[in-house]
Amino acid sequence: MGEKSTIKKKYILGKAREVFAEKGFKNVTMKDIVDACDISRGGLYLYFSGTDELFLAVLADDIAEDDEEAVTAALSGNASAGDMLALFLKEQKKEILRKKNNLTVATYEYFSVNKVSAKDNPLKKQFDTAVKIVEKLIENGVESGEFYCENPLGCARNLMYVVEGLKITSKTVGINEEVIDKELMYVLEGLVPDELNNNSN
Amino acid sequence: MGEKSTIKKKYILGKAREVFAEKGFKNVTMKDIVDACDISRGGLYLYFSGTDELFLAVLADDIAEDDEEAVTAALSGNASAGDMLALFLKEQKKEILRKKNNLTVATYEYFSVNKVSAKDNPLKKQFDTAVKIVEKLIENGVESGEFYCENPLGCARNLMYVVEGLKITSKTVGINEEVIDKELMYVLEGLVPDELNNNSN
Repeated sequence: MGEKSTIKKKYILGKAREVFAEKGFKNVTMKDIVDACDISRGGLYLYFSGTDELFLAVLADDIAEDDEEAVTAALSGNASAGDMLALFLKEQKKEILRKKNNLTVATYEYFSVNKVSAKDNPLKKQFDTAVKIVEKLIENGVESGEFYCENPLGCARNLMYVVEGLKITSKTVGINEEVIDKELMYVLEGLVPDELNNNSN
Repeated sequence: MGEKSTIKKKYILGKAREVFAEKGFKNVTMKDIVDACDISRGGLYLYFSGTDELFLAVLADDIAEDDEEAVTAALSGNASAGDMLALFLKEQKKEILRKKNNLTVATYEYFSVNKVSAKDNPLKKQFDTAVKIVEKLIENGVESGEFYCENPLGCARNLMYVVEGLKITSKTVGINEEVIDKELMYVLEGLVPDELNNNSN
């Protein structure tokens, strides 16, 4: 794809993201995207065959950026494993609390009508990547003696399912930063060796 | 409310539930409910002023039944705390895997346009009740020596956020019984005293 096409495609994805965030998935038509982008119908169809393809591209684009930032932030630098895990969780917290351009509702509407194979599912890739990052950070922490954990993969998965639970609960019940901190701290405390955690014992 | 009215209301809620499960929330009109119930428009408005009120009633009705069964199952009988917790989690698993009459998408659509105060939010009540049940079961298990846990409330909340995460992931990524078992077992294993859990240590 030429540079101009890449820029145009990126532009369409950005606008489409705003439309999906505002209207969900089910009620969005290609006409809505044409209007939001202020381009011709033919110009849009050159890049995307319909709202299904377009939504999946928005989702994948979004996640690719998030992941890259998260991985870079989490695995680079000289910070301790604990600090890097805290940084990673801070990013997750921002995502949980994000109100603008949030695709949550559109995502559930999309997946309620479309079946996507695990291989092509950007949400599965995102979840698996996050689990891998957390697992690696815990392993690093165990090696350096900062953490104690017999099952880093299990703990990483537990943490990421809690993050998913918090994401959804923030939409339905409404939760604040304090609640999120409490839940994430519960998992982190489980990683701290007993002699540091329970001085009373 | 007279018995006849109660039956009629229950009938409307059952039919409305089917409609919301099929169509979500945003696209459902009072006409859809009238058609599904095969009653007059006036007959429906006698009970509910609009789809907002109706959906919240469906949600509350649904949860009231679930909760009652769960509490009864979880806190009665002579079974051990471990067995009762396993029974409670089996119910959660059924809910996670439930395909028919599932209100998940309608719920997110509803909460994306409506703000419900924490006090009146049936989902918050459901979550808090579940946390209380699990906390109580863990406390019972600690007392009987079955479990070891320094923070039963923290563990209960962790478990219920994992359940929420699994519910949502089952809609978007698709998960099977094995994945659910693995996540729930991770939490349960954390409750088993070390001498039982790690014979190798």
